[in-house]
Amino acid sequence: MPGPNGQIDILAHEAYTKFLEELPRTGPGTMAGEMLRRYWHPVYLSSDLKDIPVATTMLGEDLVLFRDAEGRPGLLGLKCSHRGASLEYGQIRENGIMCSYHGWTYDARGRCIEMPLEPPDSRFKEKIQHPWYPATEWGGFIWAYMGPDKENPPPLPEIDVLARTDGEIILSSGDVRNYNYLNWLENFADMGHAFILHSLIRTDVPDELKPYNESTIKSWIPAQLEFVETDYGMKTVAVWDTGEPEIKFVNTWSIARPTYWRFSGITAGLPPDFTDDRREAGGMLRIIDDTHFEIFRFTLFRKGNYKGTIVPSRTTSQQRGLPPDLRGRVEKKGYDNRKYPAWEGIPTVEDLVMQESQGAVLDRSAEHLGTSDRGVILLRRIWRKAMEDVASGREPKGISRLEREMLEVDTFHGHIKAVELEIGPRNLPSSLNGRGLIRDRSGKLVFE
Amino acid sequence: MPGPNGQIDILAHEAYTKFLEELPRTGPGTMAGEMLRRYWHPVYLSSDLKDIPVATTMLGEDLVLFRDAEGRPGLLGLKCSHRGASLEYGQIRENGIMCSYHGWTYDARGRCIEMPLEPPDSRFKEKIQHPWYPATEWGGFIWAYMGPDKENPPPLPEIDVLARTDGEIILSSGDVRNYNYLNWLENFADMGHAFILHSLIRTDVPDELKPYNESTIKSWIPAQLEFVETDYGMKTVAVWDTGEPEIKFVNTWSIARPTYWRFSGITAGLPPDFTDDRREAGGMLRIIDDTHFEIFRFTLFRKGNYKGTIVPSRTTSQQRGLPPDLRGRVEKKGYDNRKYPAWEGIPTVEDLVMQESQGAVLDRSAEHLGTSDRGVILLRRIWRKAMEDVASGREPKGISRLEREMLEVDTFHGHIKAVELEIGPRNLPSSLNGRGLIRDRSGKLVFE
Amino acid sequence: MPGPNGQIDILAHEAYTKFLEELPRTGPGTMAGEMLRRYWHPVYLSSDLKDIPVATTMLGEDLVLFRDAEGRPGLLGLKCSHRGASLEYGQIRENGIMCSYHGWTYDARGRCIEMPLEPPDSRFKEKIQHPWYPATEWGGFIWAYMGPDKENPPPLPEIDVLARTDGEIILSSGDVRNYNYLNWLENFADMGHAFILHSLIRTDVPDELKPYNESTIKSWIPAQLEFVETDYGMKTVAVWDTGEPEIKFVNTWSIARPTYWRFSGITAGLPPDFTDDRREAGGMLRIIDDTHFEIFRFTLFRKGNYKGTIVPSRTTSQQRGLPPDLRGRVEKKGYDNRKYPAWEGIPTVEDLVMQESQGAVLDRSAEHLGTSDRGVILLRRIWRKAMEDVASGREPKGISRLEREMLEVDTFHGHIKAVELEIGPRNLPSSLNGRGLIRDRSGKLVFE
Repeated sequence: MPGPNGQIDILAHEAYTKFLEELPRTGPGTMAGEMLRRYWHPVYLSSDLKDIPVATTMLGEDLVLFRDAEGRPGLLGLKCSHRGASLEYGQIRENGIMCSYHGWTYDARGRCIEMPLEPPDSRFKEKIQHPWYPATEWGGFIWAYMGPDKENPPPLPEIDVLARTDGEIILSSGDVRNYNYLNWLENFADMGHAFILHSLIRTDVPDELKPYNESTIKSWIPAQLEFVETDYGMKTVAVWDTGEPEIKFVNTWSIARPTYWRFSGITAGLPPDFTDDRREAGGMLRIIDDTHFEIFRFTLFRKGNYKGTIVPSRTTSQQRGLPPDLRGRVEKKGYDNRKYPAWEGIPTVEDLVMQESQGAVLDRSAEHLGTSDRGVILLRRIWRKAMEDVASGREPKGISRLEREMLEVDTFHGHIKAVELEIGPRNLPSSLNGRGLIRDRSGKLVFE
Repeated sequence: MPGPNGQIDILAHEAYTKFLEELPRTGPGTMAGEMLRRYWHPVYLSSDLKDIPVATTMLGEDLVLFRDAEGRPGLLGLKCSHRGASLEYGQIRENGIMCSYHGWTYDARGRCIEMPLEPPDSRFKEKIQHPWYPATEWGGFIWAYMGPDKENPPPLPEIDVLARTDGEIILSSGDVRNYNYLNWLENFADMGHAFILHSLIRTDVPDELKPYNESTIKSWIPAQLEFVETDYGMKTVAVWDTGEPEIKFVNTWSIARPTYWRFSGITAGLPPDFTDDRREAGGMLRIIDDTHFEIFRFTLFRKGNYKGTIVPSRTTSQQRGLPPDLRGRVEKKGYDNRKYPAWEGIPTVEDLVMQESQGAVLDRSAEHLGTSDRGVILLRRIWRKAMEDVASGREPKGISRLEREMLEVDTFHGHIKAVELEIGPRNLPSSLNGRGLIRDRSGKLVFE
Repeated sequence: MPGPNGQIDILAHEAYTKFLEELPRTGPGTMAGEMLRRYWHPVYLSSDLKDIPVATTMLGEDLVLFRDAEGRPGLLGLKCSHRGASLEYGQIRENGIMCSYHGWTYDARGRCIEMPLEPPDSRFKEKIQHPWYPATEWGGFIWAYMGPDKENPPPLPEIDVLARTDGEIILSSGDVRNYNYLNWLENFADMGHAFILHSLIRTDVPDELKPYNESTIKSWIPAQLEFVETDYGMKTVAVWDTGEPEIKFVNTWSIARPTYWRFSGITAGLPPDFTDDRREAGGMLRIIDDTHFEIFRFTLFRKGNYKGTIVPSRTTSQQRGLPPDLRGRVEKKGYDNRKYPAWEGIPTVEDLVMQESQGAVLDRSAEHLGTSDRGVILLRRIWRKAMEDVASGREPKGISRLEREMLEVDTFHGHIKAVELEIGPRNLPSSLNGRGLIRDRSGKLVFE
């Protein structure tokens, strides 16, 4: 006869299995989808939204994004409330958007303000409430809030890199993936993979790109790889031994709720070299539906920290789907018939291939997680807590703030004295105004 | 406690919701599909059916259409009754079609008349009844009857324009749409849309195409727009005021059961101008399945009433899918990423975009209909009555006639004295032999 | 009141209907799929498997096929047991294959032999049993056994043609069909079709290819067509009368369990001519899933028995899908809009068109089988018996042998004295070492 402990285990196992099924969902009414709706989400590059409405899908809902004649963004249900024609083909009007079929016009709050074919004294339009979501513009993006209490949404947090004014920021969009966003995010929370996957053809690295101290990092695997929950989400901290016992080399990667991530440098996951150009890079995921998401990337270039040619102003690349030249660095063999032949050698391509090959929605019940999967497990714990908080009527992590705040995340990348290294939830020096980003072996900022 | 009225309302609402779900269906066994099966339907252009069998789908059923060696059309179930090979690859025989796999041969009534591999004295073929439907040829089309009592179908009605001999008729086929046929037909029953959708870029109309009396029709919207049930189906009558109070300008559009429609002129929905070329235009829908239909169009040109170049004889265009050059009249913007960029300016394109954007099957439960939707409501009432009639064992509208009749519909287009205008179910002068088509401001026919 | 016989008929009919539904299934846990798993199946051409892993599907299961650094083939579940990345992108290692994501490495028995990110003293890998199947290499192919008792599979039978050393063998792969493998196999068990389907444009056959004795074979249909169960599976024997009553012409076709087939000559189904080049041809089906299979073909050329140019060594053609030039011999008509226009005239194309047109999975409940379908009925009876044997815990036909045997099948093709002709389960002279293949009218081998 099974005792109470046995019963609890079975129940816990069932609850966990159910959680793993709920975890990747994004639609309305799902536990994870409702949690995600408590956060602001990026929808579109500001500079790409002009005088043509754009059909878009966010968290599984079909929407139309537009600017009215005054330039104010609006985000409405895609199909007209009258007879279901798509507002993607609507006409921009002074205070809103007009359906081209019969002229029903909506403002950004979903109010119907015009029905030209109805009698002039008709009050029918007062009965129409078209679906709408608050949309706002900041930092080069249009943002949406799709949760409850739409008239009074939480403040939009500022993203540290996007708030910066001490460099050129390059934004890019259009990299749409055909699998669940968590395949991507769990990859980022799991930096152990970098030392296998991104080292597959390391032997090809030229001498001048070799690591700081080859003798101590034979395996490329850091001496310490820690996963820490923070106020904004979680961070990964890697610590390498150097040739001097009292000096460590440290690198960090951060994920802020819900889908903002930061590198500490463009070659962030890789061993500490000082020959690399220094770019401050991060991005956000736009969650389209359960099996699609888009990657928005941003990179800040400060004067003198990049040796290549910088595109001189903020640019946008509205590519559709994957870049056509996305391929690895090795030579393709004639008998390589895979979808991605000769894919090894470029971390972005390597990640894409692994993530996509996990399937549109990963079957987590078939996984076998080890101690090296602590990052994935931490990310899921944070997600689960937030899902349960929302299901219980509480605000999830990172939402309770009353005032608008800066989403300032750890970005330490460089040397530090062993006695000064303390790995915990407190921020390592962040990139705000360039603080903390890249440090030389005495711990001093390389650029200030 | 809800009273009897409340209960009736709930039941009526449930019944109406159920009706809206049934309405767009076309397959066998569905309420609307069974109703549609009481009518003859056009299947193919006569001139396109040669010595190769054609696989086709009608009302959701997979069929093969062919001519036997004598030229007689036959319409059979697509898959051979023997072992399921497709008769699309069958061989034309003197009295029917032979399956290429084992030689079973069927006549147009689905009787198996040959089994070459069976013993000569076998009577096995007498046990086979292959699915078949009556098919006949008239007016440039092959027609099918897919209802009950196949040995004794109702007479095929003659279509007025197709019966005409006083001009050149141009027939076209091949415009296959990937949405339910009612998206199209409800558009035609709802001529209010013309004054919004088809006026989107009216400002571009050159002076010489400006309407008869610009001062009275500022908004392009007619003074009166009436929707009337007729014996053959329904008609829309638009009445515009002119500069003279005792003279009205009138235009009509007609829908005859099940899917025959008529314009009164090529620019039929638009304001009364006299500079337009006069073509007598209409067409029929071929219902493929719930989410596909094909548009057959016909246009009659009488001597002297068209200034362009007329293709001198009856022609056919067996295009597949939408014409490749189907685009609007405005300039495409580089950032217009819609499926149909720069679509505005040509009524056919405008209608296509709106109808397709309503979805493969429109969710009618999400609609909000106003007083300007009287035409759509009338069409649905006619459909519902016919569906209920058939479900109750009665013949639906337009089928009870015992003799073959001309399907002669309203086509009035021109001026009329206000005192003579009477809008009701009685036909306005129709186009038979050109009567009634286009009239000058004294009410006289422009062409006779 | 229905008597016991009536009840039995109903039950038998229900059981047979259920059998016809089960028959084409191939997946794990299905009655037919479990039966198929008792046999070895060909997976890939040996010469095509190099140093890149290959994703493949066998009997509905997603697998990865690879060679380790020693050249030994391995066949494992496609998705890594760790976090589901595809081993198609894995790295070849000395004793197995390494997942590129986190380095888990498996040997060919599915044992995890490396977890580089886990602590050095971790015993986690001992808990992992990755899905695997025995794979072996023989006769130019990699073979898999996917049934129970994987440590001790039945011996792989030798295929007679593949074991031959007295000629050049040409192997080909890559002809993947998008329908159930039984559409193909039932076609082969049903040689009656040859005399209809493959004779459609016989009038075009040049004089020098006309049959042996035109007067006796007016209809091309053999005097006798027998379907016989044998120890290895089944064979079809066709007997034609010749101009001399005491001499018959005989041809055979054989199917060995599960999917090995043999022609007696390249134009095997067609009437007896002696002008044809003599090739010993057969092949095997690779069952991908319920609606896909691949055809492996092999042809043996012995010195002097082929007048064309022989590709001098064993070659492989790893085509994907159907050959792009797969079309018939007649001229395409401009109005032929079928998927396969002008398809008649080449038996391979004719068979493809018929089989594909039967549908991805043939609806056998709609068939009407006659006496000429005895071959199809025999094939199904053999399949049914094997399915029931496996369901009852018995070995199916052709598996009980304890030692490795040669799968030697009937291949008689030529003249025989009427008094010597005996059609039964005993083998007609087979092709082993060229015995029996092609004989002149005195019954002597043409080539020895």
